[in-house]
Amino acid sequence: MATDPSHYEQTRRTTPTRLRDRASYERAAIHAVLDEAIHCHLGYVVDGAPVVVPTIHARHGDVLYVHASSGARVARLAAAADEGVPVSVAVTLVDALVLARSQFHHSMNYRSVTVHGRARLVTDAAERATALAAVVDHVAPGRSAESRPGDRQELAATAVLRLPLEQAVLKQRTGMPKDDEPDLALPHWAGLLPVRTTFGAPEPAPELADPAPPAHLTGYRRP
Amino acid sequence: MATDPSHYEQTRRTTPTRLRDRASYERAAIHAVLDEAIHCHLGYVVDGAPVVVPTIHARHGDVLYVHASSGARVARLAAAADEGVPVSVAVTLVDALVLARSQFHHSMNYRSVTVHGRARLVTDAAERATALAAVVDHVAPGRSAESRPGDRQELAATAVLRLPLEQAVLKQRTGMPKDDEPDLALPHWAGLLPVRTTFGAPEPAPELADPAPPAHLTGYRRP
Repeated sequence: MATDPSHYEQTRRTTPTRLRDRASYERAAIHAVLDEAIHCHLGYVVDGAPVVVPTIHARHGDVLYVHASSGARVARLAAAADEGVPVSVAVTLVDALVLARSQFHHSMNYRSVTVHGRARLVTDAAERATALAAVVDHVAPGRSAESRPGDRQELAATAVLRLPLEQAVLKQRTGMPKDDEPDLALPHWAGLLPVRTTFGAPEPAPELADPAPPAHLTGYRRP
Repeated sequence: MATDPSHYEQTRRTTPTRLRDRASYERAAIHAVLDEAIHCHLGYVVDGAPVVVPTIHARHGDVLYVHASSGARVARLAAAADEGVPVSVAVTLVDALVLARSQFHHSMNYRSVTVHGRARLVTDAAERATALAAVVDHVAPGRSAESRPGDRQELAATAVLRLPLEQAVLKQRTGMPKDDEPDLALPHWAGLLPVRTTFGAPEPAPELADPAPPAHLTGYRRP
């Protein structure tokens, strides 16, 4: 298949078994969802069984950095495997509850990206420092410039996984419920209930001499 | 170990490798997080590699029902395995961004439950109907009574996984950033940025004769 730089290549692993019209491989759209999501869920395999844990991430071009601690199981698995450890990383943004006349057509409007691949430990000190600053800036843009970077001991206690964005798929649903024609006459309300992630006013730590929050936190919003 | 009905048994799989003081096995606290979360992330293993996908769930006592379609890979894996398919289900509620003076102590306040175990397909028709109504009511309490239940064909197209709540762990962080003493004098702001999931006004489907939303959607909030 010829490489189209605006899209990730569709592979067997990134092809849904159903609802394929909800899938997209568009690079910019996948990046936007990865960038908007505050956190992700990381899946890996231990003794043949799956483990899913929440963690934080940052996208840097076509690389996804995933935060761990150096004591975490997945970090130890990655450290022990030169070729990397198979992982699956999912982020999901819920936009609305979809309430149909039929229970069958109940759904959610959402945007979800799953990335598959082999994650390697970032061992280069400079890349690890860059990746950790990216993770901090992912959570709060501009924050890495207004906080103290990790020292040698802190960087040693932190693990960063490097997952190339090669096998990635966006799944999404938008719009109103899609009830079957005969159900439209049923006496049930149908429509959407919008869901949003919102951010409150910054709450300063009690020891601060000046509690006024910095510009990168007032009016905080996701990219 | 004697069984304490107020707690799930701690097992090797549910024991974190780090930050064990953030882990809890308290049944009521685990139930509350599973009930509040709108959606979950389901992990399973295909050809030795993990797959993580978002889906919806409902807790019914000490059983977690997880929604799938009968064509989904995990449903086919479960159908092919009498003893069930190994899964990991995680739900995560983010409560605040934790902004410390040091990048190392940046964190999130969150409540996250991970459930491990073997999921079986619900094959009994009555249990499947009950489980699907529970999933609908999980998303919008009271909704199953105000929508059309699935007919035979719809129920056949839907798969429900049954995962016993036996190995479950809650991990959580609360409170202000925990900077090291020497960092408290740094000129960086520190504190929390609260994160909330909020719900907008119901948006009626265009075909409705009466667009006024029902009581179970006005003033909607999670349990």
